[in-house]
Amino acid sequence: MKTLQDYIDKLNSLNFKEMYENDFFLTWEKTDDELEAVWTVADALRFMRENNISTKVFESGLGISLFRDNSTRTRFSFASACNLLGLEVQDLDEGKSQIAHGETVRETANMISFMADVIGIRDDMYIGKGNAYMHQVSDAVTEGYKDGILEQKPALVNLQCDIDHPTQTMADMLHIIHEFGGIENLKGKKLAMTWAYSPSYGKPLSVPQGVIGLMTRMGMEVVLAHPEGYEVMPEVLDVAKSNAEKSGGSFRVSNDMADAFKDADIVYPKSWAPFAAMEKRTDLYGNGDMDGIKALEKELLAQNANHKDWCCTEELMKTTKDGKALYLHCLPADINDISCKDGEVEASVFDRYRNPLYKEASYKPYVIAAMIFLSKFENPQEVFKKLEEKKSPRKFSI
Amino acid sequence: MKTLQDYIDKLNSLNFKEMYENDFFLTWEKTDDELEAVWTVADALRFMRENNISTKVFESGLGISLFRDNSTRTRFSFASACNLLGLEVQDLDEGKSQIAHGETVRETANMISFMADVIGIRDDMYIGKGNAYMHQVSDAVTEGYKDGILEQKPALVNLQCDIDHPTQTMADMLHIIHEFGGIENLKGKKLAMTWAYSPSYGKPLSVPQGVIGLMTRMGMEVVLAHPEGYEVMPEVLDVAKSNAEKSGGSFRVSNDMADAFKDADIVYPKSWAPFAAMEKRTDLYGNGDMDGIKALEKELLAQNANHKDWCCTEELMKTTKDGKALYLHCLPADINDISCKDGEVEASVFDRYRNPLYKEASYKPYVIAAMIFLSKFENPQEVFKKLEEKKSPRKFSI
Amino acid sequence: MKTLQDYIDKLNSLNFKEMYENDFFLTWEKTDDELEAVWTVADALRFMRENNISTKVFESGLGISLFRDNSTRTRFSFASACNLLGLEVQDLDEGKSQIAHGETVRETANMISFMADVIGIRDDMYIGKGNAYMHQVSDAVTEGYKDGILEQKPALVNLQCDIDHPTQTMADMLHIIHEFGGIENLKGKKLAMTWAYSPSYGKPLSVPQGVIGLMTRMGMEVVLAHPEGYEVMPEVLDVAKSNAEKSGGSFRVSNDMADAFKDADIVYPKSWAPFAAMEKRTDLYGNGDMDGIKALEKELLAQNANHKDWCCTEELMKTTKDGKALYLHCLPADINDISCKDGEVEASVFDRYRNPLYKEASYKPYVIAAMIFLSKFENPQEVFKKLEEKKSPRKFSI
Repeated sequence: MKTLQDYIDKLNSLNFKEMYENDFFLTWEKTDDELEAVWTVADALRFMRENNISTKVFESGLGISLFRDNSTRTRFSFASACNLLGLEVQDLDEGKSQIAHGETVRETANMISFMADVIGIRDDMYIGKGNAYMHQVSDAVTEGYKDGILEQKPALVNLQCDIDHPTQTMADMLHIIHEFGGIENLKGKKLAMTWAYSPSYGKPLSVPQGVIGLMTRMGMEVVLAHPEGYEVMPEVLDVAKSNAEKSGGSFRVSNDMADAFKDADIVYPKSWAPFAAMEKRTDLYGNGDMDGIKALEKELLAQNANHKDWCCTEELMKTTKDGKALYLHCLPADINDISCKDGEVEASVFDRYRNPLYKEASYKPYVIAAMIFLSKFENPQEVFKKLEEKKSPRKFSI
Repeated sequence: MKTLQDYIDKLNSLNFKEMYENDFFLTWEKTDDELEAVWTVADALRFMRENNISTKVFESGLGISLFRDNSTRTRFSFASACNLLGLEVQDLDEGKSQIAHGETVRETANMISFMADVIGIRDDMYIGKGNAYMHQVSDAVTEGYKDGILEQKPALVNLQCDIDHPTQTMADMLHIIHEFGGIENLKGKKLAMTWAYSPSYGKPLSVPQGVIGLMTRMGMEVVLAHPEGYEVMPEVLDVAKSNAEKSGGSFRVSNDMADAFKDADIVYPKSWAPFAAMEKRTDLYGNGDMDGIKALEKELLAQNANHKDWCCTEELMKTTKDGKALYLHCLPADINDISCKDGEVEASVFDRYRNPLYKEASYKPYVIAAMIFLSKFENPQEVFKKLEEKKSPRKFSI
Repeated sequence: MKTLQDYIDKLNSLNFKEMYENDFFLTWEKTDDELEAVWTVADALRFMRENNISTKVFESGLGISLFRDNSTRTRFSFASACNLLGLEVQDLDEGKSQIAHGETVRETANMISFMADVIGIRDDMYIGKGNAYMHQVSDAVTEGYKDGILEQKPALVNLQCDIDHPTQTMADMLHIIHEFGGIENLKGKKLAMTWAYSPSYGKPLSVPQGVIGLMTRMGMEVVLAHPEGYEVMPEVLDVAKSNAEKSGGSFRVSNDMADAFKDADIVYPKSWAPFAAMEKRTDLYGNGDMDGIKALEKELLAQNANHKDWCCTEELMKTTKDGKALYLHCLPADINDISCKDGEVEASVFDRYRNPLYKEASYKPYVIAAMIFLSKFENPQEVFKKLEEKKSPRKFSI
């Protein structure tokens, strides 16, 4: 698209009215139109920024972030998204708070939200907990808003939970759309979401789960490949199967990396921990069984080490479509002889795809900003039109 | 009030000219007019925000925060207040600074203030220290301003010291004013500030002290109740007595919770540590006597445990005015069987008052913003008028 | 200068076009005109702030800071500078990031820069590392910009490296310029950059190195004095010699503090660690040799203690020009009987110069803002003119 009007026209063709005043938890809770609205708004915001049109739609207001796991890129993406719209990030650092006093989620959620327009949460460590926690927070502020305590209902954006990583996969997908020239060109394309070896353990399942939960909606031939024992959440497998059926694509699980890579248009080789082991770990933490956790870690690392051959090699890449499938990763990757001896990908493969990988990552701030935008403005088309008319530059221009 | 002009008219009737370029340490250092100006400006700012009128009065400038104790709600309230006015919060994290190098308060205060319009400090841990430290900081920046080092004198806002917690009690009071339909309706109302049992120890005295120092000014019948041995600072008792006399109300101390609750219109049951013990603790810390501190902690917990019957029960609530006194708390509360086995309040009482409690907390950001506003603008009435004329929306509107 | 036009006229006489879209690493990599442009823009920004003219030139955008050493004044100076221009500071806290996962500098640099207009880094601890790291970051984002990954190239500002501390020395110099009434008055003035005793060890060399690398450019008579064994980087000595030659001043090294102070117009007595020892320490850290580090620390403290007589005393001050040389320090200073028993300066000397010292520090935010400004705007003169015409106040005015 070449003008802002093109994005507005696209939005006019979509039904996304349910996104207004709503949250973003899982991609499969959204309609196709709603997902396309996110990508369209993300592209429009990028277009405006690239053309030095300010997209500051808030004069004041906070964007609250809560990271229950370390983060660089998601933290900066959230901060960038908030800043782009005029919201100031305030991080809820649980270590510096009084939450240890036994405060309820309901109370904390309201106490931080008096002037909050959005809350972004990353809570991906424990199976059955992260997504549930986000819902608790959302329920609390929704009630607080209804009860007249909060003047606005902050939108909740899932910055990675135990089930899905929607800001990542929506950015991945926007990258794919741009690489393939449009959603309409994805039908029939083969995508391989495959496990890969890493010397670390306990990497979240939210990326592979999020990928099969989203990419199966475009009519693609999606293969999830992993060694036996590295199964993902069964519920998400069901989502993927049902998506594939509806979209006219296919979904299958394989225990053979070569099978998945064969003729693939897109490959996404990445390590994760077995779902069953992560469930066990959650229970061990729940019981404070530190010896059990150490034993589990040792066991998992040993199990991983049996599968060092699950690596994205040049040899495997040659077997993909024309030998040049689009290689994806959420970063940081474990690169052979760079970040570790044996890892997820050979250095020469990674190097060749460095620019596309960084480009892939660059969509995340815009995807987050779009999720906030669609929750906050009922008619983004009109807002875009007015912003264009207003011609307020992001960076002062003479 | 229904229009911004109503708030402006109210301000026109008050004398608060001494607040301009001044700090906010203790409520009893301010006149009645000055306190009413704070509440009026707070309400006006809330009115404007609710009507989507931007109150951004700074294009740039910093709000410095220094928290020497953990904090969630005060931290977010201060951040919200600054953001509402256009100031960016910059936290002085003493752990990340060079202050350990032996730098003086005077120097640090100036070094962080070159572009600071406000400094908010929480320093409530040690008797005789917190308020004194805030004065040191204020003196330093006042001198820096006079000496031409600083282009502006940052306003100091006491976010809780060893003596008072003015942003809390001013928010509490604004809540009371709204619940009772105006300051003029408070005369003769009975308020019970009572101790309550908590399994933790060492809770600051600033809330009960701040409450009796402020609430005695409205002609109310104020009772401070606590077990023997839980006395507060004698100086603040004197303030309360003198306030009550001047305002035509009353103030007395009781060692009987039931006596305090009887026919009360407002109850504020909350744990605190004995003043004498806190003084002792300050000395022990001063001498680095860690064994002494542990012994004191054990002693205080045992002493607390003798008073588990000091709990805000349904039974006690029934004895209040019509059985429905307004229940207040600064939060988080120790709730029976929720945050601990025995605590300050029964769960059913707390639950019934949850919404009013959250509403009470929601005034704090506005009270802080009002304190900053009155220190920074000589004529807030004119500023409000111009902001209304300008009609710049907080959130973009079409 | 009295009007903004005066600063604009000054800028019109200078050639600084290479600063646009460029970084600021070392002062000696910049031309005289470029340095003067920094001072002029810094003064112009201060003039505008003092006259309540908003200098907000960004509606959105991030200023990324990375502090690999504790910092108060540089942290707040950077935050103030960004805020003054409209950028929001986002701190990269390596402890909270995923960088430990083995991510490359190139990757991290790009991941945090999607909406970053400036990156400020302090990395002064290890010889041969800090400046090199900054170049790695700059190279990475320059490449990212060229490859279309970043929409803008963030300017890199050196907030202190192992070689230079340009934001400090440029602020020092701006202070000198104002004190002496113009650059043109500095020719022939004697400046003594001297070592002084401190009971701590391992203070960075970047200040003395930065001072002799910059102050030798003004035709001044610069003496670097220190006890034997406290040599600075030989490369910077060469820079200083060459500068002095070109500028018609002089540069020499002395091992006698009295010799340096004699008739000096400006004195800068400050502790630092021997370059050779710092090189050794870097190697010890590289090898993880903690015993070696402890031994080195002990050795260095003992070595320092041999030179307690290197103190800026009243007696020494009397020997300076008319007994009243301008005393400089980057702060915090080790003051006798205040921050330590024996230190860098007698309390009465420090006290007498407190105001000028704080004034000296007050230039740093403006110097940083000027560095950013010159990197971001090709024609600052036009921007100033338009800002003045726009007359948007920093603080709301009626």
